Amino acid sequence: MATRANSVPHRTVIEVDPFIPADQQKGIHNRWHPDIPAFATVKPGEVFTVQCVDWTGAQIGNNDCSDDIKNVDLSKIHNLSGPVAIEGAEPGDCLVVDILDVRPFDKMPWGYTGIFELENGGGLFAREFNSRAAKAIWDFKGVYATSRHVPGVKFAGVSHPGLIGTAPSAELLATWNKREGELIAAHQNSVPPVAFPPEPKGAYVGQDISEEVMEKVAREGARTVPPREHGGNCDIKNLSKGSRCYFPVYVKGANLSVGDLHFSQGDGEISFCGAIEMAGIITFSCSIIKNGVEKFAMKQPMFLPSPVDPMYSAKLIFEGISVDVHGDGKQYNMDATVAFKQATLNAISYLMKLGYTREQAYLLLSAAPVESHVGAVVDSPNACVTMALPLGIFEFDILPKDDGLTRRDFGQCAIRSDGVL
Amino acid sequence: MATRANSVPHRTVIEVDPFIPADQQKGIHNRWHPDIPAFATVKPGEVFTVQCVDWTGAQIGNNDCSDDIKNVDLSKIHNLSGPVAIEGAEPGDCLVVDILDVRPFDKMPWGYTGIFELENGGGLFAREFNSRAAKAIWDFKGVYATSRHVPGVKFAGVSHPGLIGTAPSAELLATWNKREGELIAAHQNSVPPVAFPPEPKGAYVGQDISEEVMEKVAREGARTVPPREHGGNCDIKNLSKGSRCYFPVYVKGANLSVGDLHFSQGDGEISFCGAIEMAGIITFSCSIIKNGVEKFAMKQPMFLPSPVDPMYSAKLIFEGISVDVHGDGKQYNMDATVAFKQATLNAISYLMKLGYTREQAYLLLSAAPVESHVGAVVDSPNACVTMALPLGIFEFDILPKDDGLTRRDFGQCAIRSDGVL
Amino acid sequence: MATRANSVPHRTVIEVDPFIPADQQKGIHNRWHPDIPAFATVKPGEVFTVQCVDWTGAQIGNNDCSDDIKNVDLSKIHNLSGPVAIEGAEPGDCLVVDILDVRPFDKMPWGYTGIFELENGGGLFAREFNSRAAKAIWDFKGVYATSRHVPGVKFAGVSHPGLIGTAPSAELLATWNKREGELIAAHQNSVPPVAFPPEPKGAYVGQDISEEVMEKVAREGARTVPPREHGGNCDIKNLSKGSRCYFPVYVKGANLSVGDLHFSQGDGEISFCGAIEMAGIITFSCSIIKNGVEKFAMKQPMFLPSPVDPMYSAKLIFEGISVDVHGDGKQYNMDATVAFKQATLNAISYLMKLGYTREQAYLLLSAAPVESHVGAVVDSPNACVTMALPLGIFEFDILPKDDGLTRRDFGQCAIRSDGVL
Amino acid sequence: MATRANSVPHRTVIEVDPFIPADQQKGIHNRWHPDIPAFATVKPGEVFTVQCVDWTGAQIGNNDCSDDIKNVDLSKIHNLSGPVAIEGAEPGDCLVVDILDVRPFDKMPWGYTGIFELENGGGLFAREFNSRAAKAIWDFKGVYATSRHVPGVKFAGVSHPGLIGTAPSAELLATWNKREGELIAAHQNSVPPVAFPPEPKGAYVGQDISEEVMEKVAREGARTVPPREHGGNCDIKNLSKGSRCYFPVYVKGANLSVGDLHFSQGDGEISFCGAIEMAGIITFSCSIIKNGVEKFAMKQPMFLPSPVDPMYSAKLIFEGISVDVHGDGKQYNMDATVAFKQATLNAISYLMKLGYTREQAYLLLSAAPVESHVGAVVDSPNACVTMALPLGIFEFDILPKDDGLTRRDFGQCAIRSDGVL
Repeated sequence: MATRANSVPHRTVIEVDPFIPADQQKGIHNRWHPDIPAFATVKPGEVFTVQCVDWTGAQIGNNDCSDDIKNVDLSKIHNLSGPVAIEGAEPGDCLVVDILDVRPFDKMPWGYTGIFELENGGGLFAREFNSRAAKAIWDFKGVYATSRHVPGVKFAGVSHPGLIGTAPSAELLATWNKREGELIAAHQNSVPPVAFPPEPKGAYVGQDISEEVMEKVAREGARTVPPREHGGNCDIKNLSKGSRCYFPVYVKGANLSVGDLHFSQGDGEISFCGAIEMAGIITFSCSIIKNGVEKFAMKQPMFLPSPVDPMYSAKLIFEGISVDVHGDGKQYNMDATVAFKQATLNAISYLMKLGYTREQAYLLLSAAPVESHVGAVVDSPNACVTMALPLGIFEFDILPKDDGLTRRDFGQCAIRSDGVL
Repeated sequence: MATRANSVPHRTVIEVDPFIPADQQKGIHNRWHPDIPAFATVKPGEVFTVQCVDWTGAQIGNNDCSDDIKNVDLSKIHNLSGPVAIEGAEPGDCLVVDILDVRPFDKMPWGYTGIFELENGGGLFAREFNSRAAKAIWDFKGVYATSRHVPGVKFAGVSHPGLIGTAPSAELLATWNKREGELIAAHQNSVPPVAFPPEPKGAYVGQDISEEVMEKVAREGARTVPPREHGGNCDIKNLSKGSRCYFPVYVKGANLSVGDLHFSQGDGEISFCGAIEMAGIITFSCSIIKNGVEKFAMKQPMFLPSPVDPMYSAKLIFEGISVDVHGDGKQYNMDATVAFKQATLNAISYLMKLGYTREQAYLLLSAAPVESHVGAVVDSPNACVTMALPLGIFEFDILPKDDGLTRRDFGQCAIRSDGVL
Repeated sequence: MATRANSVPHRTVIEVDPFIPADQQKGIHNRWHPDIPAFATVKPGEVFTVQCVDWTGAQIGNNDCSDDIKNVDLSKIHNLSGPVAIEGAEPGDCLVVDILDVRPFDKMPWGYTGIFELENGGGLFAREFNSRAAKAIWDFKGVYATSRHVPGVKFAGVSHPGLIGTAPSAELLATWNKREGELIAAHQNSVPPVAFPPEPKGAYVGQDISEEVMEKVAREGARTVPPREHGGNCDIKNLSKGSRCYFPVYVKGANLSVGDLHFSQGDGEISFCGAIEMAGIITFSCSIIKNGVEKFAMKQPMFLPSPVDPMYSAKLIFEGISVDVHGDGKQYNMDATVAFKQATLNAISYLMKLGYTREQAYLLLSAAPVESHVGAVVDSPNACVTMALPLGIFEFDILPKDDGLTRRDFGQCAIRSDGVL
Repeated sequence: MATRANSVPHRTVIEVDPFIPADQQKGIHNRWHPDIPAFATVKPGEVFTVQCVDWTGAQIGNNDCSDDIKNVDLSKIHNLSGPVAIEGAEPGDCLVVDILDVRPFDKMPWGYTGIFELENGGGLFAREFNSRAAKAIWDFKGVYATSRHVPGVKFAGVSHPGLIGTAPSAELLATWNKREGELIAAHQNSVPPVAFPPEPKGAYVGQDISEEVMEKVAREGARTVPPREHGGNCDIKNLSKGSRCYFPVYVKGANLSVGDLHFSQGDGEISFCGAIEMAGIITFSCSIIKNGVEKFAMKQPMFLPSPVDPMYSAKLIFEGISVDVHGDGKQYNMDATVAFKQATLNAISYLMKLGYTREQAYLLLSAAPVESHVGAVVDSPNACVTMALPLGIFEFDILPKDDGLTRRDFGQCAIRSDGVL
């Protein structure tokens, strides 16, 4: 018969508490550095779980005010669980990572999406909107999320780690710091900043390491914000539960770290804190392909998407071109970022016709499984990018009608206690 | 019983011959201008067909040499069928266009994909590859295409018009010419050029119009290369047969023009002549939503994709970031175009490991239904963009294996008669 | 340049006229018999087209009266185009048939769905409904069909041959006639009949064959109604354009015949003349796997579905069990046919709440891409079968609402001139 | 910040231990009867979880021997959790049940599929195969399952409750017992039996109820094996997490019960214990549509499938007709059950060519997300039913090849300790 004895749960290699500040917990770190030692070691083929705090480390609460977003301390992010060494992995190998599951803690069935202040975090439209802090709390109901702050929608999560990667070698780290330093130097005083240099303040490694190593990590460690050659903060929504990912290995053991779990996210993750951010549990199994970097000509990760990603086949799709039609009408030169922004602004305008506030629309496009395709990037001078709203996530019909669109009252999302938008 | 009398075929409003140069045929034009009169008029709800030459107007042949690509006369493109007026359409309305079918002529069951010369047409990697003319001929076999120049693949077409749009008003045309002119002025001597100003040489309107109007169209008419607010050369692969599109109307009658039919195309249409270019027949039905531009806050077209787009759910996906990792390693600032290029180059490298030449890989990614998503454009300084290869289009297994990839011999695509690559 | 000389259309091996009675045309036959000689021969790998009349051979008209359905002569069906021999095929081989395209004639952009009389053709609910002739005419608009007789729906076609198969050997034919004869003997006087024995009246072979052979074919030839080991009238909607089918070969050349083209059909094809019946053109390419019957343990055809089948992912699904809950409440023993009927009757009841007549609902479920899955057939005594209505084919929201369903007025389908239902 | 105080987990209304025999636990019952009182009550809109033992109540172990299957006590099944009353539900209402999640216990990451003995449980091919007990243990790895007993496959689960339904009224219960009793009477001595009458032995209600009520339930209570008007043991694989189900209400409170959780199942659930049976946790939210039975003409449940069901679009599909081609060649009359069996036997034959044993093939088709469609049930005398194998669940290429199929060695599944097959 079924017994506890013949039922062996998967090993949890890192355990955290989502309600305790991240910098008081073991197995968490928030910088990339080759000298951060492995916190745990697993065997190829072993199924194991890793627990993660939310990316801010419990800074954001389940309430109806965005002051916590306004005041978030970004020197402390992202809080990653790891590193986990995989036995036998060596530089030049390809680390095959099966993301077997990603789910919230049962004890914390909610997450959040935030719009950051222009001066503290930014976001895709930080300057266009002169962004002030805003927030939506999402309730997890099994595979679905809904929000009291963005009524009228319900969607299945494409749950995934926003951030996952292998540890860089010293050489790779130096490359990152050099090239990003040059960009920063070329864009002094940019608000928000164009990139983030190493920052000792807030740096954290939840392990017993020497002061010397800790100081080195703090001084040199790459910030976790951008995606890079090793993966990192890719924020690719389809790197979801059920996907198989291939990473280049740069250090012995590969030293995989993961965090920034998302219950859901739209292509682009536009508001920066744009996914449905959550704490939770991720289940992995890893294997190694020797010398895979050369075998597969890998300069960056590649992956196989999951067969269980939500299927919303009917969509309303907005086009965007690399002309700032929502602003001063300026012509850009084959700029897919501008085109993406225009497509997204077209979608926001449409959502506002339906009754959503600009902030709700911004949060919704960040968090829901919207899809953005690169249409064409060769038709000079205009890149063409699309943004697709899945019809099935709305609890009402959003299609264009002869009589126009019915404007509903959806209230407003969580905003600052001083009411500033 | 079934009789010819009770069987009424759809009306063909523009008839062309795909084997005759476009500038000898009626109902074709190759510039955007409000003064080009409607060539035909249809009623709302009427199902009608429009025949189209290929975008070059029969300049390219079904053979094994790319000299025709090398010498293509681009002053004569794109050859559009139209304009077709829709009764009752007025400026400010939304024109609803059902693209009911797109198919090749039975008498011409083939198409082509071209890589243009750096100095004549360019393409996404024209400078990186110092491009020389190359070509693949694709044979149409019902819903599928195969090519003797890119063996080992077979895929179903996402057939669509690369170019479709309503006629601009005089004001809109002036806006286009002004903003693009400024861009050109700022990038003198760029090779390939960043944009194309009005060009009297090669301008053509296949109607009986006064010399004065023709001269005005030739002098002011916008070139057809870029997508713009009215649609135009969007090259969105999912604007395919079965889709419903919404266009802003700028002139009385809307004056819809269409051309550049594609049997298939990948996201990005990377080699510029990158789709499977074909001559063929498109079937439409149109209706009008009065004052739709205001009702739907339209600044650009939007659309509903088709339920019959090919379903290739299993994919190998490559990531790209806005660092030129395939070149000098330069760090760009949240540039989705750079990220798209890197993802694509990663895919090309992988295809070359499988045995394809660089040119074959370039052509394949242009023509096959590859998908590119914007991952995230907020993680400073790196945009993250993905490029997905559908596994089902290959006649062999392309997945990463422990032993690496088997390199096959696929020969080479059509190249120049002088052998220069 | 593109020329007629370098553009070779696919060869048409059988040409027909959809407006001429089938028994006046060459290359058509309506019985299965090994002695019917090949009408045309193709090479493996060759792409070729076959033209087909509708299954009745032009007996049904595009009008608003079902008298032609009432009086249809079923001794003359199905009219098949063929046989086509494939060079090199021998008994025991597996014939690989790529169904590359299926489409209507441009000159006949319409089809029909019929409900037959109880006494002339029957159908799934012939006895339950005491069926009288009814009809819906469908207009083809590119990939879509709509009907003036079933308003409120529009759907993309899963176009396919209802009937396709290889010629039987003499032994196989004898097996068919024996086993079906026994069934008929056991169900004398059944209305409609349980099966159809060979019937000289109406038998037709559109070739120059000896009177002796013709007489033998007429006397022994198997009727075309049921699917059998060789394929035949499978009426599987997903054997559609883009699919690859594997058939056992029983005679030299395989002798493939095809007909009963359907623009669309639902799982079950419930009204018997239940698909959208059309005349049209089918494009093929064939190859041979030597000794494939043994290699693949084939007792019947198998196939790979098409990547371009329509994608309607959102559905309302009705359950049915093997109890006649719509009739006398009788308990059947694990009978999936009964369960299928109950699920379908549940769907019909629901459609009638929306305002469709019973006849319209019957026709709609026959013709639209509804899907029926076998849920479970082991939970004694009840089989469980489902019937799924795709939401996306309706032009209004059909989902259950708190206030119930809005009953619309959809008129009625085409009925008999005497008004009898 | 995130705190335990602002994080409220969903309420668990029934808690069970998967390692303790079901008849020692509260909140479990194994018969349908209107007099079984509600064990818990929930409010409309409330999200709540229900824990379930596996259907046998811990009788089956994680080991490599099928003796436990051989000796399973079927008088004790199915062990259901419930009833759960929904406030406000009354007879005639429609109970809307959102199945928000279905997952195994973390402490029991495995399940099983069994082939029952001909004389103890049966199954679809019990007589054809003269079935002896066999078993496969499946390991749960996040969204996937694999088995040491059926190597070479890995698939994502379509997790669902095999059994879910509302309590019957006394009248409905009487109807069931009468009609099933008549069937049993007509098939005395059938092995396995055609249906199961009320059986006091093994009857269990895990609540404090009077002896009198318990005796009545045991004497009259309907067995849980078949699906019926109220839902019940439908074993519909797509009634999965994320689906919305509509049930008729027959008693005050609706009294929903659920059990027989499946990690995965194929259409048909052919081996009877054919799904991947598991213990686990199901998350619900319910609402009520007053008088919904009349509003929607409901005679049985209906449902909306989930957007997160696994997407395996490429398939190899086998056809089956209502002739016993795998047996004595007998012709059946439009019998979809026979056709389903033939299609399934064709798939089993094919899997055996790949190297699987008959028992492994039987288990695999039971447990994996295979799909069976009703092709047509009107082409007298043959029903046509299909069985589709998703290609993506195999770790190797199963497609037909010119050289035939490579036969691999997959060992054997778990069998009886005496080695009898």
